Amino acid sequence: MTQRVALWQNIKDLLHGEIVQGVWRAGARLPTEADLALRFDVNRHTVRRALQALAEEGLVQPRRGAGVFVRAAPLRYPIGPRTRFRQNLLSAGRTPSRKLLHLSQQSASSAEAKALGLVPGAPVHVMEAISFADDLPISLARSCFCATRFPELGVALRDTNSVTGALANVGVADYLRKSTRLTGQNADPVQARHLQLSTGDALILSEAINVDVTGRPVEFGRTYFVGERVELVLESEDNAAFVT
Amino acid sequence: MTQRVALWQNIKDLLHGEIVQGVWRAGARLPTEADLALRFDVNRHTVRRALQALAEEGLVQPRRGAGVFVRAAPLRYPIGPRTRFRQNLLSAGRTPSRKLLHLSQQSASSAEAKALGLVPGAPVHVMEAISFADDLPISLARSCFCATRFPELGVALRDTNSVTGALANVGVADYLRKSTRLTGQNADPVQARHLQLSTGDALILSEAINVDVTGRPVEFGRTYFVGERVELVLESEDNAAFVT
Repeated sequence: MTQRVALWQNIKDLLHGEIVQGVWRAGARLPTEADLALRFDVNRHTVRRALQALAEEGLVQPRRGAGVFVRAAPLRYPIGPRTRFRQNLLSAGRTPSRKLLHLSQQSASSAEAKALGLVPGAPVHVMEAISFADDLPISLARSCFCATRFPELGVALRDTNSVTGALANVGVADYLRKSTRLTGQNADPVQARHLQLSTGDALILSEAINVDVTGRPVEFGRTYFVGERVELVLESEDNAAFVT
Repeated sequence: MTQRVALWQNIKDLLHGEIVQGVWRAGARLPTEADLALRFDVNRHTVRRALQALAEEGLVQPRRGAGVFVRAAPLRYPIGPRTRFRQNLLSAGRTPSRKLLHLSQQSASSAEAKALGLVPGAPVHVMEAISFADDLPISLARSCFCATRFPELGVALRDTNSVTGALANVGVADYLRKSTRLTGQNADPVQARHLQLSTGDALILSEAINVDVTGRPVEFGRTYFVGERVELVLESEDNAAFVT
């Protein structure tokens, strides 16, 4: 009895050590139960027990139908006047990428029109995309831009696959985050599928307005961040003035 | 057939009008299905159909075992250098209150010690409390303070039931939010019970450090906000400098 307990614990400790040492990196998928059983010359039940213990320690996370993954520390994502997706990811040592889901010209909803200072129904470019850090989905965003002011922005977004790059292409060399509103939401089945989550997992919805140097709104973005993969960080630069 | 459809829709429209007109205020519990059936002289199935339609419109929300509640617009809760719970609620036209769950002196965990600039195991006052807006729970917080520097703070917290008031009582007349880190979490059964939610509902965990005027940390707070009841708002004051 004692020996059987020791066996799965040995395997757990061994995998634990390999994760800590970086043999299996954050976000990586562990070998299958069958492969691990072969490697350690044990049955799959013993492997499963070890993996369960690692999951309880918070070191790995099973994802339905996809395997067991090494849990990544949440990505540090600063939110401030100069919030930039690519820059944030590069600063965190992660590789940014974006998968375009949809790009079209639509009529602004009342919320979109209000955020952008347009009349409801005005033409807007709408872009939907998934953002990744090292191949792990971290957010699902819908961005909205005035199509009358920026007729070429749709093409620029497709060409550059970057909001900052596309805005620069149409003459907006710089922009600032004016406001961000954050609420908590549970993932619906479509969001869960896009973000490789389970339905109901916690998301943070960020509704943000970016303005150009004259203070005029250029982008209204609604971004669903995966609650446990991203850590939104707000730091008061104003303290520098306060703390002498 | 047409008439039966009209009946539940009539009741839905009538309740919809009453909610919009403020007969039933945000956060209020609607009468029970039995009471509504009596009032409208219909069977409970018809009432249920009307309530379902109101829920689909997002106007009301059933809470398991508690009834059907008028959905409140999320509370606007600014986060910035001067984040104050009472002030935020009063500005939103809501009545703030706090229920103390627990207050004791403990040994700082490594995370608490790090945030407060103490050695692990140093004595800290720990306060756990639920915060309410108009009797609706909006957050569950654990606040942590150095007990060596502030020996009398435990008593002050109990007397004032206010962090700002208690800190003032022990000589900290002013404090500033230095940093806030936000992640998304699913409510566990205990959190759900305290916050009148269902297990798994989305929460935003805020981990915040407040500092005194010399920049020294005075409070480390971990606050779970109810995702759909609170809207954390970040506005860049820096834009004033940028936008001329």
